[in-house]
Amino acid sequence: MSRNILLTMRYDGAAYHGWQLQKNAVSVQQRVNEAIRNVFQEPVNVSGCSRTDTGVHALMFCCNFHTQKQIPASRIPAAVNSGLPRDIVVYDAREVPDDFHARFSCVGKEYLYKICVGAYRDPFYEDRAMFYPYALDEGLIENEIRSFLGTHDFSAFCSAGSAVRNKCRTVRSAEVFRDGDIVELRLSGDGFLYNMVRIIVGTLIGVNEGKIEKGSVPEIIASRDRSRAGVTAPAQGLYLSKVFYPEEGIS
Amino acid sequence: MSRNILLTMRYDGAAYHGWQLQKNAVSVQQRVNEAIRNVFQEPVNVSGCSRTDTGVHALMFCCNFHTQKQIPASRIPAAVNSGLPRDIVVYDAREVPDDFHARFSCVGKEYLYKICVGAYRDPFYEDRAMFYPYALDEGLIENEIRSFLGTHDFSAFCSAGSAVRNKCRTVRSAEVFRDGDIVELRLSGDGFLYNMVRIIVGTLIGVNEGKIEKGSVPEIIASRDRSRAGVTAPAQGLYLSKVFYPEEGIS
Repeated sequence: MSRNILLTMRYDGAAYHGWQLQKNAVSVQQRVNEAIRNVFQEPVNVSGCSRTDTGVHALMFCCNFHTQKQIPASRIPAAVNSGLPRDIVVYDAREVPDDFHARFSCVGKEYLYKICVGAYRDPFYEDRAMFYPYALDEGLIENEIRSFLGTHDFSAFCSAGSAVRNKCRTVRSAEVFRDGDIVELRLSGDGFLYNMVRIIVGTLIGVNEGKIEKGSVPEIIASRDRSRAGVTAPAQGLYLSKVFYPEEGIS
Repeated sequence: MSRNILLTMRYDGAAYHGWQLQKNAVSVQQRVNEAIRNVFQEPVNVSGCSRTDTGVHALMFCCNFHTQKQIPASRIPAAVNSGLPRDIVVYDAREVPDDFHARFSCVGKEYLYKICVGAYRDPFYEDRAMFYPYALDEGLIENEIRSFLGTHDFSAFCSAGSAVRNKCRTVRSAEVFRDGDIVELRLSGDGFLYNMVRIIVGTLIGVNEGKIEKGSVPEIIASRDRSRAGVTAPAQGLYLSKVFYPEEGIS
């Protein structure tokens, strides 16, 4: 009898060329496949909830795979972790219905973006935050980020190279937190386009610097024109932080 | 005219054999000396506020050096940082009186010790916290840590190899904080013996595990017997977090 196993993990993405398998570079998916094959002694290829780019992190990332082996779910995290490098940690495993798919069953995600606004670099946030040693007007950012709420065609906030046709997405929450020199932007929604969060952050930075007009986000969204939005903020500040499924107990 | 310059910095100690110069291993002091010599074009050897062990971190670390060169203090951090690896960052420089010495002028320090109590490792705390995937009774720890407050002969909490004669120290505050799976112990005092904070943490863990009797810390202190205290907790959880000087504006 085939089982469908959902793994939930965290990873520090600094050393990886993203989640997705690559021909000539090490990806998180490759490491996870290897560790699972080691435990299950079967050819396995996990399906991830999302692609993440080179250097992007995950506080929560889900993937699933099918297996014939009857290893109890409660034993899987420790067994798989023993074959993983220290920057990838599986912290949950559970059996899910046969038709569950980490990507297609997903009904929402949350991302964090960390900005280090101190005058000098913070060694504890190297590769883990965007370094921005300039004045950041939090009130302004808090105000502007609200313009992303709701359902819109986010074509202006999607990098070229995306094969997705329907670029309508719903942003459900958009918040700003500050802890010392770390400003954290938090966005949740039903889904995000390729580089969408990083372009949103780059646009907010553009507004902060007066390069993009205050209050113009609704217009930029309506234009569907990528060139009117800001630059793509660096990958190392981005964290996939939550993945939502309708199934009970997974979130 | 000779100037005495005080530098304040942060470092991630994971890659270093502590602060102090070593013959066959890379230390933070060596890297700082090299970066300063590069900027000042003089033979310089900085004096640190403290030795830190291999793998120990600093959120605040002070050192001073004498120079003839007239580079304005405000320009020194950026200039020195340009010659430092990314895990060491100078964030302040100021001129101090000629007799100021980072170690001998110091009147107090604060240390943090981070313990990751999650069931699974946290990739973002690798080399940055002690991993303790067991039940930690915070109420108990909060209660026991108070026994370290006050002035005592802390011989029982000092590793062999210390050349210090007077082992009396005053612990001014001892607190426990929790943020998710990270438990943070915070101790401040006029000074700390070799490995003192790590042995205090090891003793608290010993009490948590029932290996050391609840309420017995005052007795262990009074015994001055190192063998009655707990093990030395791992270096990677330890952070020097504050350094106090009587001079205004330095802390």
